[in-house]
Amino acid sequence: MIYQIDVHAGGQGLHDFTTDVETIVSRAGIDEGLCTLFSRHTSASLIIQENADPSVCRDLENWLNRLVAEGDSLYTHIMEGPDDMPGHIKSVLTATSLSVPIVNGRLALGVWQGIYLWEHRRHGGSRQIVIHLGP
Amino acid sequence: MIYQIDVHAGGQGLHDFTTDVETIVSRAGIDEGLCTLFSRHTSASLIIQENADPSVCRDLENWLNRLVAEGDSLYTHIMEGPDDMPGHIKSVLTATSLSVPIVNGRLALGVWQGIYLWEHRRHGGSRQIVIHLGP
Amino acid sequence: MIYQIDVHAGGQGLHDFTTDVETIVSRAGIDEGLCTLFSRHTSASLIIQENADPSVCRDLENWLNRLVAEGDSLYTHIMEGPDDMPGHIKSVLTATSLSVPIVNGRLALGVWQGIYLWEHRRHGGSRQIVIHLGP
Repeated sequence: MIYQIDVHAGGQGLHDFTTDVETIVSRAGIDEGLCTLFSRHTSASLIIQENADPSVCRDLENWLNRLVAEGDSLYTHIMEGPDDMPGHIKSVLTATSLSVPIVNGRLALGVWQGIYLWEHRRHGGSRQIVIHLGP
Repeated sequence: MIYQIDVHAGGQGLHDFTTDVETIVSRAGIDEGLCTLFSRHTSASLIIQENADPSVCRDLENWLNRLVAEGDSLYTHIMEGPDDMPGHIKSVLTATSLSVPIVNGRLALGVWQGIYLWEHRRHGGSRQIVIHLGP
Repeated sequence: MIYQIDVHAGGQGLHDFTTDVETIVSRAGIDEGLCTLFSRHTSASLIIQENADPSVCRDLENWLNRLVAEGDSLYTHIMEGPDDMPGHIKSVLTATSLSVPIVNGRLALGVWQGIYLWEHRRHGGSRQIVIHLGP
């Protein structure tokens, strides 16, 4: 069972789309199984992080922006803008695919866990996330 | 088929729990399939690393502690202690979910691979790891 | 359904083996499902990255080599050569397992996505990648 959702991130940063995934799992009527998410992009990541305090997401964004700085003289891939090569590096340091077990018809997330698209481009547009639900 | 195990890390660092996962796979009687592990926490990771020389785990811990330092003036999320925001950053730089194929009734790990919980908090307590076994 | 392929990286860097995986998926005759790749090594990673401009792969390699430098005085695990401990660190910062949905008999990769083995050793030899195809 394959689904695709388009996440409109609207700029750099972490965007919580847990509710979209929960809705798909709920409608599929799977009691036990595995939900795997896959990003079809090389400058946007999928991560699971704390959804309680927004300062966590801001600190993550600022910390990673400092580690993977724009304008680094090391970059030779610079034609697509100053945020492009940092975006590729950030995506390999995080995750392109994620798997979450389904228990009693719901994602087995911890109490404070949310599923995020981490957009690394300033104008990344809509991102295609493919979701596989398995037994 | 869903299982949950609680891993008592007992402080920061890498904790090998391969035997616990092997036991679950063995008892389930699956000959071929996929074992997926999921951490229900945002300050602890799942990684696969060398299990031969303990100096590898110590160097990993020390290297990551230097990269993601406590007391960084960039952090605004500081209410839960100096090891909290570093823990969130470390968890996004490593993995929350891991999948290992099952071949001939056993995890298809390489000879020197072990499955580790990487605890990033000083007093993280017991961590819930959800395990999904699929066909 | 389990397969194993050996990827001959031939030195440090990113090696595209998307075609090998596509061939396995195509021959298996699965219309919809999930393809999971697993590396049996602790100094080589699996990543998905841009396959259009080779400068992306070179910049990734150079950036990570600078972040995880050889000869760091922090390392105590040094008996297996100067590229060994950096290889372990690089592998935990990237991925050991990857899952890609299968749609209409093909990997649901984005237009510019390729599947890479990232070899972190200078003389890593052939690397065993286990592939699980699930429903």
